[in-house]
Amino acid sequence: MESIDKVNLAAKFDQIPDHWNPRIAGELNGQQVKLAKFKGPFEWHHHEHEDEFFLVVKGSFDMEFRDKTVTLHPGEFLIVPRGVEHRPVANEEAEVLLFEPASTVNTGNLAPNERTRTNLERL
Amino acid sequence: MESIDKVNLAAKFDQIPDHWNPRIAGELNGQQVKLAKFKGPFEWHHHEHEDEFFLVVKGSFDMEFRDKTVTLHPGEFLIVPRGVEHRPVANEEAEVLLFEPASTVNTGNLAPNERTRTNLERL
Repeated sequence: MESIDKVNLAAKFDQIPDHWNPRIAGELNGQQVKLAKFKGPFEWHHHEHEDEFFLVVKGSFDMEFRDKTVTLHPGEFLIVPRGVEHRPVANEEAEVLLFEPASTVNTGNLAPNERTRTNLERL
Repeated sequence: MESIDKVNLAAKFDQIPDHWNPRIAGELNGQQVKLAKFKGPFEWHHHEHEDEFFLVVKGSFDMEFRDKTVTLHPGEFLIVPRGVEHRPVANEEAEVLLFEPASTVNTGNLAPNERTRTNLERL
């Protein structure tokens, strides 16, 4: 059996040197816990079949929707339902925990581009 | 479409007056985000088909396994794989975010008892 160990979020984020490049920090029930640092604007996209959970651990960012913007601070989370266009924008660096299906790709419906990340690294 | 709003964890925990009584704070992909306050010892149990994620938001607690104990502090999470016996014990009150399938019952494999919670309240 795999060993059962706790994960310290701050220690894991210290291992992440780049932005918009999610790492896998845990897996359960076909879902993954991912950690990512956000900085600057990402791209407008949506996920056809997956809802996404974003929890800010440090810093803050804006989740832009076509009709409003929600600013997330540490200790706040947001669920973006499947099909809803969104664009995260971090004016300063933000550390974010994501929960989503293992199948979710960061750029969603977009044709793969230079920001698309697959085969994510495990922390 | 349901409205998309952020959730502030501290504000939600302020609405929870009791212990070992998880509330639903969000749903995605058939999974639920639950918030619970832990205090004192819970009961030994396991979940036959569900992995469970525990993230400490405030306070701390011990997750006891048959062969070891893991102490979780704020900003630390632990995934308990399905089938593994465990018992959370909080020497002082802890605020915990759980992520698990909507089908998960807090007392797992045990016959329903006075601590079993179903039809969870939504925050």
